[in-house]
Amino acid sequence: MIEVYFDYLSPYAYLAWQALPAVAERLGRPIVPRPTLFAGLLNAFGQKGPAEIPPKRIYTFKHCWRLAADLGVHFAAPPSHPFNPLLALRVTLAIEDAELQRQVIDRLFAAVWGGGAGAETPQQIVPLLSAAGLDAQAVLAAATSEPIKAKLRQGTADAVAKGVFGVPTFIVDNELFWGLDSLSHLEAFVEGRDPVDRQALAQLVNLPSSAQRR
Amino acid sequence: MIEVYFDYLSPYAYLAWQALPAVAERLGRPIVPRPTLFAGLLNAFGQKGPAEIPPKRIYTFKHCWRLAADLGVHFAAPPSHPFNPLLALRVTLAIEDAELQRQVIDRLFAAVWGGGAGAETPQQIVPLLSAAGLDAQAVLAAATSEPIKAKLRQGTADAVAKGVFGVPTFIVDNELFWGLDSLSHLEAFVEGRDPVDRQALAQLVNLPSSAQRR
Repeated sequence: MIEVYFDYLSPYAYLAWQALPAVAERLGRPIVPRPTLFAGLLNAFGQKGPAEIPPKRIYTFKHCWRLAADLGVHFAAPPSHPFNPLLALRVTLAIEDAELQRQVIDRLFAAVWGGGAGAETPQQIVPLLSAAGLDAQAVLAAATSEPIKAKLRQGTADAVAKGVFGVPTFIVDNELFWGLDSLSHLEAFVEGRDPVDRQALAQLVNLPSSAQRR
Repeated sequence: MIEVYFDYLSPYAYLAWQALPAVAERLGRPIVPRPTLFAGLLNAFGQKGPAEIPPKRIYTFKHCWRLAADLGVHFAAPPSHPFNPLLALRVTLAIEDAELQRQVIDRLFAAVWGGGAGAETPQQIVPLLSAAGLDAQAVLAAATSEPIKAKLRQGTADAVAKGVFGVPTFIVDNELFWGLDSLSHLEAFVEGRDPVDRQALAQLVNLPSSAQRR
């Protein structure tokens, strides 16, 4: 399997969600979605997100536009950003059937970054659930129940424990890959073509530091 | 011209320095090096560097190894990391001749990320300057003079003012590109093939936010 850790807030996660199926099919590995609260990752590692650094926010939008053009994927602005992704993440976790869940993730991402009307409020999300043939009110009720809220918290904590520091992150055979541009490296890894020299890496990881930022 | 903002601390900057000449030659644009203190950028934007987040530090090393393999570039560990890059940055600024400066940047980067002995101390840097045919003691004296120290501070402040939030960053025709993977986008931009819709971008940049991280 290829686990994909994502938050609807991230345009890179949207792009990766479009690119991942071809990789998964070539490798013969199923995709396992891991909805994750990006803000929880940032808090855990004391880091700022791209949207919290003004010039990086603008750059990120341009970058995603260019990457979308490279991929041939439609990319457009959501109605607001940042927005609160909690309901969309919880709705995703509330759907147990894997194929229905995949369809709903497609629709939620498209609602945010593919020219849709957003995926923050029940008013925005209900029509997407209905369009997927789901009982929208039942899904909403499950999504706002304590067990699903706890599942998202636990999923985000599990991600942190595995060293997931950003989205999208992919984990395959216990190896973590971060970002859209890592998919070709993930593919090489699974096919036994990873160029990382594990012995030299151990040396690198244990390098002494001779300076620290004040 | 293509301005390149870099710090010897960054393995991505090393890789970009190897990849940039082919791009610059195809575009017929000279490379203008802008030595920049990465720690100064992080401080200005209140951000952490990759080496300051434990799982991201390990991932960055692996990622650079894989990117180096993609580029066919030699990549190896420096003797310590993080290290203090101030002397190497100041030495770079102390060399006025553009061709000699380019050669010294090559040698300093190779000393850090290309399997060399490091580029932090005078003992490490002097042989590199001598090998480039320079009067190493004269360069060291200039590098530790107040005008050169001020030039690095000013260069880093200018970078922040231009919105440079990381290294490597390239600026061409007032457009900022960040990271090794942006070089293909820079090339498309200069050739008039940038897919960013400027009108839609203005809308994106001015999007309202409907949530803020606490």
